[in-house]
Amino acid sequence: TRTGVAEAVFCQGKSNSDLQAIVEHNLAEQKALLMTRLSSEQWATLSPEIRQQLDYDLTSKTAIANLEPIVQSSKQVCIVCAGTSDVSVATEAQRTLRFNGIEAPLIADVGVAGLWRLLDNIEQIRQYKIIIAVAGMEGALFSVLAGLVSAPVIAVPTAVGYGVSADGQAALSSALASCAPGVMTVNINNGFGAAAAAVKIVRQYT
Amino acid sequence: TRTGVAEAVFCQGKSNSDLQAIVEHNLAEQKALLMTRLSSEQWATLSPEIRQQLDYDLTSKTAIANLEPIVQSSKQVCIVCAGTSDVSVATEAQRTLRFNGIEAPLIADVGVAGLWRLLDNIEQIRQYKIIIAVAGMEGALFSVLAGLVSAPVIAVPTAVGYGVSADGQAALSSALASCAPGVMTVNINNGFGAAAAAVKIVRQYT
Amino acid sequence: TRTGVAEAVFCQGKSNSDLQAIVEHNLAEQKALLMTRLSSEQWATLSPEIRQQLDYDLTSKTAIANLEPIVQSSKQVCIVCAGTSDVSVATEAQRTLRFNGIEAPLIADVGVAGLWRLLDNIEQIRQYKIIIAVAGMEGALFSVLAGLVSAPVIAVPTAVGYGVSADGQAALSSALASCAPGVMTVNINNGFGAAAAAVKIVRQYT
Amino acid sequence: TRTGVAEAVFCQGKSNSDLQAIVEHNLAEQKALLMTRLSSEQWATLSPEIRQQLDYDLTSKTAIANLEPIVQSSKQVCIVCAGTSDVSVATEAQRTLRFNGIEAPLIADVGVAGLWRLLDNIEQIRQYKIIIAVAGMEGALFSVLAGLVSAPVIAVPTAVGYGVSADGQAALSSALASCAPGVMTVNINNGFGAAAAAVKIVRQYT
Amino acid sequence: TRTGVAEAVFCQGKSNSDLQAIVEHNLAEQKALLMTRLSSEQWATLSPEIRQQLDYDLTSKTAIANLEPIVQSSKQVCIVCAGTSDVSVATEAQRTLRFNGIEAPLIADVGVAGLWRLLDNIEQIRQYKIIIAVAGMEGALFSVLAGLVSAPVIAVPTAVGYGVSADGQAALSSALASCAPGVMTVNINNGFGAAAAAVKIVRQYT
Amino acid sequence: TRTGVAEAVFCQGKSNSDLQAIVEHNLAEQKALLMTRLSSEQWATLSPEIRQQLDYDLTSKTAIANLEPIVQSSKQVCIVCAGTSDVSVATEAQRTLRFNGIEAPLIADVGVAGLWRLLDNIEQIRQYKIIIAVAGMEGALFSVLAGLVSAPVIAVPTAVGYGVSADGQAALSSALASCAPGVMTVNINNGFGAAAAAVKIVRQYT
Amino acid sequence: TRTGVAEAVFCQGKSNSDLQAIVEHNLAEQKALLMTRLSSEQWATLSPEIRQQLDYDLTSKTAIANLEPIVQSSKQVCIVCAGTSDVSVATEAQRTLRFNGIEAPLIADVGVAGLWRLLDNIEQIRQYKIIIAVAGMEGALFSVLAGLVSAPVIAVPTAVGYGVSADGQAALSSALASCAPGVMTVNINNGFGAAAAAVKIVRQYT
Amino acid sequence: TRTGVAEAVFCQGKSNSDLQAIVEHNLAEQKALLMTRLSSEQWATLSPEIRQQLDYDLTSKTAIANLEPIVQSSKQVCIVCAGTSDVSVATEAQRTLRFNGIEAPLIADVGVAGLWRLLDNIEQIRQYKIIIAVAGMEGALFSVLAGLVSAPVIAVPTAVGYGVSADGQAALSSALASCAPGVMTVNINNGFGAAAAAVKIVRQYT
Ligand SMILES: Nc1ncnc2c1ncn2[C@@H]1O[C@H](COP(=O)(O)O)[C@@H](O)[C@H]1O
Ligand SMILES: Nc1ncnc2c1ncn2[C@@H]1O[C@H](COP(=O)(O)O)[C@@H](O)[C@H]1O
Ligand SMILES: Nc1ncnc2c1ncn2[C@@H]1O[C@H](COP(=O)(O)O)[C@@H](O)[C@H]1O
Ligand SMILES: Nc1ncnc2c1ncn2[C@@H]1O[C@H](COP(=O)(O)O)[C@@H](O)[C@H]1O
Ligand SMILES: [Mg+2]
Ligand SMILES: [Mg+2]
Ligand SMILES: [Mg+2]
Ligand SMILES: [Mg+2]
Ligand SMILES: [Mg+2]
Ligand SMILES: [Mg+2]
Ligand SMILES: [Mg+2]
Ligand SMILES: [Mg+2]
Repeated sequence: TRTGVAEAVFCQGKSNSDLQAIVEHNLAEQKALLMTRLSSEQWATLSPEIRQQLDYDLTSKTAIANLEPIVQSSKQVCIVCAGTSDVSVATEAQRTLRFNGIEAPLIADVGVAGLWRLLDNIEQIRQYKIIIAVAGMEGALFSVLAGLVSAPVIAVPTAVGYGVSADGQAALSSALASCAPGVMTVNINNGFGAAAAAVKIVRQYT
Repeated sequence: TRTGVAEAVFCQGKSNSDLQAIVEHNLAEQKALLMTRLSSEQWATLSPEIRQQLDYDLTSKTAIANLEPIVQSSKQVCIVCAGTSDVSVATEAQRTLRFNGIEAPLIADVGVAGLWRLLDNIEQIRQYKIIIAVAGMEGALFSVLAGLVSAPVIAVPTAVGYGVSADGQAALSSALASCAPGVMTVNINNGFGAAAAAVKIVRQYT
Repeated sequence: TRTGVAEAVFCQGKSNSDLQAIVEHNLAEQKALLMTRLSSEQWATLSPEIRQQLDYDLTSKTAIANLEPIVQSSKQVCIVCAGTSDVSVATEAQRTLRFNGIEAPLIADVGVAGLWRLLDNIEQIRQYKIIIAVAGMEGALFSVLAGLVSAPVIAVPTAVGYGVSADGQAALSSALASCAPGVMTVNINNGFGAAAAAVKIVRQYT
Repeated sequence: TRTGVAEAVFCQGKSNSDLQAIVEHNLAEQKALLMTRLSSEQWATLSPEIRQQLDYDLTSKTAIANLEPIVQSSKQVCIVCAGTSDVSVATEAQRTLRFNGIEAPLIADVGVAGLWRLLDNIEQIRQYKIIIAVAGMEGALFSVLAGLVSAPVIAVPTAVGYGVSADGQAALSSALASCAPGVMTVNINNGFGAAAAAVKIVRQYT
Repeated sequence: TRTGVAEAVFCQGKSNSDLQAIVEHNLAEQKALLMTRLSSEQWATLSPEIRQQLDYDLTSKTAIANLEPIVQSSKQVCIVCAGTSDVSVATEAQRTLRFNGIEAPLIADVGVAGLWRLLDNIEQIRQYKIIIAVAGMEGALFSVLAGLVSAPVIAVPTAVGYGVSADGQAALSSALASCAPGVMTVNINNGFGAAAAAVKIVRQYT
Repeated sequence: TRTGVAEAVFCQGKSNSDLQAIVEHNLAEQKALLMTRLSSEQWATLSPEIRQQLDYDLTSKTAIANLEPIVQSSKQVCIVCAGTSDVSVATEAQRTLRFNGIEAPLIADVGVAGLWRLLDNIEQIRQYKIIIAVAGMEGALFSVLAGLVSAPVIAVPTAVGYGVSADGQAALSSALASCAPGVMTVNINNGFGAAAAAVKIVRQYT
Repeated sequence: TRTGVAEAVFCQGKSNSDLQAIVEHNLAEQKALLMTRLSSEQWATLSPEIRQQLDYDLTSKTAIANLEPIVQSSKQVCIVCAGTSDVSVATEAQRTLRFNGIEAPLIADVGVAGLWRLLDNIEQIRQYKIIIAVAGMEGALFSVLAGLVSAPVIAVPTAVGYGVSADGQAALSSALASCAPGVMTVNINNGFGAAAAAVKIVRQYT
Repeated sequence: TRTGVAEAVFCQGKSNSDLQAIVEHNLAEQKALLMTRLSSEQWATLSPEIRQQLDYDLTSKTAIANLEPIVQSSKQVCIVCAGTSDVSVATEAQRTLRFNGIEAPLIADVGVAGLWRLLDNIEQIRQYKIIIAVAGMEGALFSVLAGLVSAPVIAVPTAVGYGVSADGQAALSSALASCAPGVMTVNINNGFGAAAAAVKIVRQYT
């Protein structure tokens, strides 16, 4: 595509008939298709023929058809996430990367409250060229990571928490105000966007 | 006093004549006196006789008279601060503690962007019963510290930074939303309040 | 544990299968277990064998297994709450304290609109070393309490109210901006966090 | 006037020549005149003849000409304020009341951090029909007062404080979210408006 | 009561068993009782014996028992509201006034977009000593009314609207920033609080 | 120009040398030139030759060179403003209109607190095809005007007021949430933008 | 009507019985009627006789009765919208225009992420006198359009998106802060208001 | 360095003596040094010997000593900025890149209000691997650019504008909510941070 990443369909808020039509159209043209924010309720309303051709993943709420072949450019992107509640957003990133030909590992549950868990994994993380960090609550993970690795960090703040962090604003501010240089941020819960940015970087250089 | 800490005068916004009168009144009664947020301009307008009886510190913008004797209850409170711009608020805490009889060390410039500096100092910090942590920008220090020590952490967010962290709101949210249990927070830049809380705790137990 | 308080599971937003797995794992290891924000719906999906081993409390939405023996360090912490709507958060604090070996009384319905009710109980409150104050709406209770006792006050703002106080922001600001020195604050509705902080203080000194 | 209170000139932001013209015009017509938010700098630029006919008060930043005779309807309005920094706003209310024929006492420095000072004055306050309460920081005074008196309370939040209370928003929210029924609020720092409302009430009934 | 208005029960968020208990207790003591924010679902769960003794009004979501006799102090309070969506809040005020012995007319649908409808009713409104104005959206009614009558205006902003006015914040700001002196404000949707304030004023003078 | 209005230079924040260069360049090409937000300090730094060719107006902070001839399409646009403090923004609109060939009257000081002044002028206002309304504080003027005329209303909220209206946000929300259909809004203080929009409308139809 | 547009009924939040009554009353008087924000649930509760006389459109959630004859003033208004999720709001505008006698085309799915799609349609758009632009997320469409056409642009920000744009605030700010002169804004999702403004403009000139 | 970019000194808010000491220390060690946010006032207070060894640039407010040799990895990064007021932030990015060995062109004044200027430069921009986009006001440039190039876009929102865009929040939201995938964001005005991120990317791949 003109913008360096394959088009994806953002399903949240779309009607069932619109979704059915979009998928049918794409499959007819045998185009690769990524659907994001596809709830299990929406998934259930798609016709059986359609569902058969799609690989649906409940955790990330994504469906993929006609996957492009994986280009094994090794050790490009690593996804790191703070808590189990962040896994849904992290796998949205992971599936978007796979859809664009990049296999990325997900290192979960390494939030800063248990710093040793992060430090135990840091050598593995350092082997990758780009880090996608996913964290909610206070988002301290972004700064700590960026201070420990020399790779650029793409921060995905999540709406995980309550009170002042209920909507992801606290984690977003932490990413933007990070005292560690080289942190870049995308919208709250935007695992897709972080992956798209990483894909663009990888495509420029490989 | 009834509330467990000696009274302090908050000087910001007070007129020069009001300040002069308050100090004269207190010195006449030979009462211990702590003045906070006393700018160098305000300090310069006080009469020479008054200034002679006060110990003024420019960094913390505090003045003290008739200091209570230091009660050397050893290793009670440790102050940790992230960057050099946070030192002013940190020393407001340090001077308030001293005014209340507690000597507390200040470990500065151990922000999380250079995590090794914090880890190098962690054994020393662990020797204290209460930690006052002072940080601006994204305030990641609060969570990292609380995950590394078993002492309670009193967080003082500072208005250090720009853009989304200009007013201290990002650091404040980080302290409140911390993923590490046991972080307590005071108002932005409120080194005095953090010290007052620590004094109350120490007085309950010693 | 390394951080001075036993680990707890925050259940809000977790899937039923995740919860079942976490509990099974902990019970198998005979570890003490505290579950918070466990809704009655989530509770109902746990297997009967599991539920039999847990002590579930609907008001606080907490479940406890393998309770540590109560260490009767007498009169450490007192919980004070403003209105009946704050009781749920207050009992989250109470159960967290019990889980960590501390029995704390709950003095409810002493909001400042009926100041005499608070004054009637003030002598009892003064017998404790740490006060956890729980209040929503305008949160005036925090300042009034801190002006009446010499113990440190840990404020828990609650999302009780409507209009400008619907989300707890008004009470939170009141705690942070309190004119009475020595008030420390945790996140909105964070009864668990206030208790964890109190446990850390008590463990440092007893 | 049609709206029950004499017109006042809000001087903040007006040019010196506009102010000079407005005053000259009013004095020529021998009309009663109240100027509010008149800074000492603005006052100094008015012509000597004008200044001679005006009674200027620096604390409240108000000037009055051709004062209406005081109508001694006894014990109508009482002004209560929390701290010394709130006195400027409180005297704006006091001078506006006087301009409209009502003498009101100002009971200062009775903030809730020292509750006993407020309780010492409560019998005197109870003798008045309307209470104007002026407070900044967390604004706990509004609820406490409204719980202690049966008179209606008009709250004036002030921009006194720093951090979360720097702009008066914390005190404003406290007034609006007060758990005590019968608190009415005006804009931040609006001593004039609170007095104007009190005048309207008194005029309806006396 | 000590604070000049009869106590009321705020039912929103209370459990059914709590409500049943509160009502039973009050009816046993034959006390006058006002319940506000009592949803039809909550109402339906009360026992038939209880419901028989209560006068429930669906529009205002209020229930009253043992009504105090109406004290016909004529033409004290007039309620004015902008649109039909504001009627629910306006009748909460009306029922609270009645509960406290004051009959107040409700003049509805006189918003400023059809200014002539307001002007047609202005002479009637001018006959009352206190005006309660209820409006959502942009809340222009408050200023227009206060410019047309000499009575004090108690503004009740409502959460009527969408976009920037969805939560009542636009109307609240309009009430506070009103260019017409003498407007006092209560919390968003707080018809009860406006009525309580009016009751306090009336009781002081009649 | 391609966008239907002549280009203007926004001078706020531009350096003196940049301004001098821009004007010289334009005058050399004998192009019509409108400079907005040109402070008197900036104006004073321009060279005498330049200043001679510019028509500077202090109230609106605008300078004009090589004015296009006035196209007397009669009674197109009328500017209405609420208070004297709004006049500066209103004249920015007036001068921008003149620069684009449209003479528009300015009807000042017709805020809703004195509704009769607005009603006295309403017949004159009704003779125009487009109304630009300029108001700060609570911005009630927008809704009242739109309810009284059938012309479209372009609202310009101003940063006139203090407390909740200090930054123009209250007036902006009032314009957007107006209960009167047909109100369109531009940015706070943007007299230039309102005029540019009016010019575009007039050019489409005349 | 006095204000230049036919009255419309805003149905959101109205009870079923109120809606039934309003429609019956209007139809009895054979008045033209536009109902907006009429959900399918509300629609289903209207009586069959009523529904028969109304033209209901599910996408725009509008119902129309006794449509005024279309006045074919050709090529007046063009509606442009960024994404498929914006179509609901865009058709609210389209139906409101039709109700007032103006047929307007809707050019959908021309958001700036695929700029060529917008450029492909720009000549058609340029044939209209007024542009209504509907966009959510970051609302870049408003500025791009206003830079490409000489017609005035009425921006309708929509609550389409998530994270920082979930409530339409990001798109609203973009419209107000647009670097392209001549953009006017209405409330978030207010397709009705944009159309009403366009109708007023057209009626002034045709 | 451990984090992939050379350390820089953030000078804003630092005292003159602190700055002098920091520079002396670095120059003594012959280390490369980048100073950012160094105002001309601060610059003037440095000693003549120090100033002689520093290359100070007023527009970007940066000073550089002991510059690392330029590594001519050709056509890596291109800086694009919307208006002349954004140039200061854009050159902070440019100088930071140069300090880290990367020469990057600055293409200025290509905001979307004059889309053709951007389109005229798009082929040149497309030759670079990473785009840093700098824009204030509504920040529409970010989405438009990301829709036109396949390179990743690092957005730097600036605090250029007034009203709703005065503090850069509108541009920041536009970057985060961009409808074009692959936009990454840094803090408001953070030209340094965008450059640091770009350096990290380039170093990973070259
Ligand atoms: N830096 C400070 N921050 C917050 N509160 C303070 C500070 N310094 C003094 N105070 C408190 O402010 C009150 C004194 O206020 P004032 O009467 O205005 O001098 C006392 O209750 C002090 O405990
Ligand atoms: N301190 C004040 N705060 C709020 N409004 C005021 C104040 N002083 C005067 N006013 C009101 O401001 C209006 C006068 O504004 P102006 O015409 O600009 O002088 C009148 O309605 C006054 O009642
Ligand atoms: N007072 C103003 N408010 C908003 N935009 C303006 C103003 N004056 C000029 N402009 C616009 O700002 C742009 C010029 O910006 P600049 O290139 O920085 O001079 C042009 O698009 C003008 O239309
Ligand atoms: N303009 C800037 N914006 C953001 N961060 C900066 C800037 N200049 C330097 N820094 C970072 O600020 C830190 C230095 O802070 P300090 O120790 O206060 O000099 C380093 O981590 C730098 O990478
Ligand atoms: Mg986290
Ligand atoms: Mg920091
Ligand atoms: Mg409370
Ligand atoms: Mg106070
Ligand atoms: Mg209304
Ligand atoms: Mg106004
Ligand atoms: Mg869009
Ligand atoms: Mg721009």
